[in-house]
Amino acid sequence: MIREHALRNGKIIPEEKACLPITNREVQFGFSTYESIRVIEAHPVHLEDHLIRLGNSCKGIGLEHPFTQQELSSWVHELIRVDMLEEASVRILLVGGKEPLCFITASPLLTYPDAYYTHGVGAITYEGERLMPSCKTGNLLLNYMALEKARGSGGFEALLIDRKGQALEGTRSNFFAFRDGRLYTAKDEDVLLGVTRERVIQAAKVLGIEVVYQAPQAKDLQQGLYDELFISATSMAAMPLSSLDGKAYKPPFDRTNAISALVRSWELET
Amino acid sequence: MIREHALRNGKIIPEEKACLPITNREVQFGFSTYESIRVIEAHPVHLEDHLIRLGNSCKGIGLEHPFTQQELSSWVHELIRVDMLEEASVRILLVGGKEPLCFITASPLLTYPDAYYTHGVGAITYEGERLMPSCKTGNLLLNYMALEKARGSGGFEALLIDRKGQALEGTRSNFFAFRDGRLYTAKDEDVLLGVTRERVIQAAKVLGIEVVYQAPQAKDLQQGLYDELFISATSMAAMPLSSLDGKAYKPPFDRTNAISALVRSWELET
Repeated sequence: MIREHALRNGKIIPEEKACLPITNREVQFGFSTYESIRVIEAHPVHLEDHLIRLGNSCKGIGLEHPFTQQELSSWVHELIRVDMLEEASVRILLVGGKEPLCFITASPLLTYPDAYYTHGVGAITYEGERLMPSCKTGNLLLNYMALEKARGSGGFEALLIDRKGQALEGTRSNFFAFRDGRLYTAKDEDVLLGVTRERVIQAAKVLGIEVVYQAPQAKDLQQGLYDELFISATSMAAMPLSSLDGKAYKPPFDRTNAISALVRSWELET
Repeated sequence: MIREHALRNGKIIPEEKACLPITNREVQFGFSTYESIRVIEAHPVHLEDHLIRLGNSCKGIGLEHPFTQQELSSWVHELIRVDMLEEASVRILLVGGKEPLCFITASPLLTYPDAYYTHGVGAITYEGERLMPSCKTGNLLLNYMALEKARGSGGFEALLIDRKGQALEGTRSNFFAFRDGRLYTAKDEDVLLGVTRERVIQAAKVLGIEVVYQAPQAKDLQQGLYDELFISATSMAAMPLSSLDGKAYKPPFDRTNAISALVRSWELET
């Protein structure tokens, strides 16, 4: 892996030139959408799904651009080829406006210690609602602040609680919780439709677990009505929670890890 | 006016190098604060107030940085001097993180035709709540989308309506409305504490107008319970509305223009 280049509107540039002009109004307003794609064995995992979601994000916020899905796909492959990326995280960023910008950049693949999966990770709850929850945009201050608060108390993730008291999703993950053998998660329209979330739901079905689209109430989580919690994301697959707001959940997290293993096994399928 | 330079962490750089690295996490999350300052006769108007608000915005979102108010002030003056700025809009941008960034850039002064003040400008209402309303941050997608909608119908501004039905503020302005001779505006804690808003309130007091800190309800505006509306901002002073969601308001807007004249007259005071 070299990681020396980036693409700007389809043209290869040195990575240090991948930057956003401060005087650009759309940069100032965060009028942008993005996707982060896992590259494994030089293969961009579920690229088509990411590109479809990118299109939906643009549609959702009214960001018009001239780049076709085929172009975006070929540019991702070009960066993988030019920089010989075997394992990496590739980011596609679209900035709207009169002269839309598309940047494709790479960074080291995010990986986590095995212990995170065997022992779980800590999380907190954080009150706040994302604007346009189904769109992946540059409007991420809530996510940033919530995650900073989690990290400040040694945690790994913050779950966002909406005005109805529902635990909808994490700042960079979707959220799932088991209760009486069923797997609960938020309704599609209330959260980011995670590419990995979709696989988690498929995996649960393969394992014979019923999925219920109803977000857990924060107060029910606090009262211990759910017995195994996990978060999902491209970089994490399914990662168990060892605690939420100090309430502990004990290993083994067999159901979560079975789902995680299945989700990972599907990564190299095209 | 040359407008060829910018400052990055206090160092003069060519303007085209004033750009944000895409792989910087704080850039990706919009973990940033900013101020836009009007420069008139080479004088940065109410600079100290803007720097105090910038400090409050940073405190509000937890953005720590090493730049003192004195440094920021001297850098603004340096850009004015180096590029011989007589009239301009100067922007200070702070990006948080492990290595905080400060950029100071200039753009042409925003001015509006006299007709905007004599005939007023059109506005619409738009449902949505800003995160951290008292902080001026890079989390501006709601503002962008609301303003795009206003412009799409030929309007000049969109007023944001909160979940209680209150018209709190515009996407880049504060909002005021006259009713029975009193001037109504949102409570301090619900809106951006505009540097110009403060002057508008002072001007109203000088003119003997009672100011009531109670945001107009959108439904009361629709029913015509208010008889003169205006928005305020650094670039606008006080600008009258000729319509809101199609409901017309007729000139002359004497009270608004009297306030505007007073606010402008204070710009060159130090």
